[in-house]
Amino acid sequence: MANPCAAALVIGDEILSGRTRDSNLHFLAGALARAGIDLVEARVVGDRPAAIAEAVRVLGAGHDHLFTSGGIGPTHDDVTAEAVAAAFGVPIGIRADARALLAAHYAKTGLELNAARLRMARIPAGAVLIDNPVSAAPGFSLANVHVMAGVPAVFQAMVAGLLPRLTGGTPLLSQSLTIPRGEGEIATPLAALAADFADLAIGSYPFVRNGAYGTTVVVRGSDGARLEAALLRLAALFPEALR
Amino acid sequence: MANPCAAALVIGDEILSGRTRDSNLHFLAGALARAGIDLVEARVVGDRPAAIAEAVRVLGAGHDHLFTSGGIGPTHDDVTAEAVAAAFGVPIGIRADARALLAAHYAKTGLELNAARLRMARIPAGAVLIDNPVSAAPGFSLANVHVMAGVPAVFQAMVAGLLPRLTGGTPLLSQSLTIPRGEGEIATPLAALAADFADLAIGSYPFVRNGAYGTTVVVRGSDGARLEAALLRLAALFPEALR
Repeated sequence: MANPCAAALVIGDEILSGRTRDSNLHFLAGALARAGIDLVEARVVGDRPAAIAEAVRVLGAGHDHLFTSGGIGPTHDDVTAEAVAAAFGVPIGIRADARALLAAHYAKTGLELNAARLRMARIPAGAVLIDNPVSAAPGFSLANVHVMAGVPAVFQAMVAGLLPRLTGGTPLLSQSLTIPRGEGEIATPLAALAADFADLAIGSYPFVRNGAYGTTVVVRGSDGARLEAALLRLAALFPEALR
Repeated sequence: MANPCAAALVIGDEILSGRTRDSNLHFLAGALARAGIDLVEARVVGDRPAAIAEAVRVLGAGHDHLFTSGGIGPTHDDVTAEAVAAAFGVPIGIRADARALLAAHYAKTGLELNAARLRMARIPAGAVLIDNPVSAAPGFSLANVHVMAGVPAVFQAMVAGLLPRLTGGTPLLSQSLTIPRGEGEIATPLAALAADFADLAIGSYPFVRNGAYGTTVVVRGSDGARLEAALLRLAALFPEALR
């Protein structure tokens, strides 16, 4: 059976303006590969409800899962929860269990659960909460759309809590070989090998190190024996390669 | 007049598999902000011709500019140029001026301009070359779609060469203020300020430093005087803030 497929949606003006370099996509990609969920597309949109809702509709409908990051805090620019509710055409309001999580957290820290913080208890109807062990305010899953925080420490904790409850597939395995030759030197035999191993994804990544050209060849797939066979062929083609 | 708007398309299995953390989007976002071109959306797709062509069609049609990175090297997984040609319905073939650039480069480095390397001279009909001062193999602009390399040093050099030839707008200015309070404390007055300065984008970014909550408020816009007015209001609201 094929692995489930997924898309990611990173939400935030700060990414598109160049202020912040996103790290959540990279973390998510690694976690999904290990879980056997194939990440096939990612998008970044700003803090604009219409753009978020449209991306949620398209990416949610086109994939088994959609994972979002960003826009679920207490401030005016946090518009993701409302946009997701709009995308699904469901109401959104403060939910008792989410409010209780916040109340317990703020009681412990001595801060007031004011109107702004209460916004973080607004959850679309029908959603399942995603635990936030860092700062209490929960994420949520609405059908196949998993809505998580943008702060990396919180995002990572939410992903770690969420993934075990999703049905994964065969983990994506990856092996690499570093060849001390430029891509242009190895491209022709590499293409022949890729054709022979069409069930694997064979990527070629050039680099320059101490002024010398080299290429890292990455072989990805879910069948360890096939990966090993491809690596052996590669090593025979390029005896100077380092595994 | 409104600034030109743009989208970005990052191409490569290595990003979606978690092997590589993309840095080109962050670099491009900063460069476009300074050039007065508004980056409103970004996408990441794998090395799949159909996915690339579809994204090029949609994002090219929906924005004044589309900037792509990745997939124009000599190996079998470099399929961007063909996919862009397909998206535009134009032929692609080895072009004499692109071939001459490669021939000069390889003559200098003593390497052979073999069939694989010649693939990097394949340019869709009607395109304008984008200079590659790092490793010669050019990018290209086809109408409003600017196709560049994925290797960060090459991508950055191509962006630097390309942007001066595009018509920019008013640079996006950005000022920030750091407030030693959590987002939940400042959200209500911040929302009122955002409503009064609806012509600016006011973002709120929480952090924890030495165990204490704080918030960086970022004000973005193209009118320096308005930015200054918003910052003065912010500083009056939060006298403990640090500019």
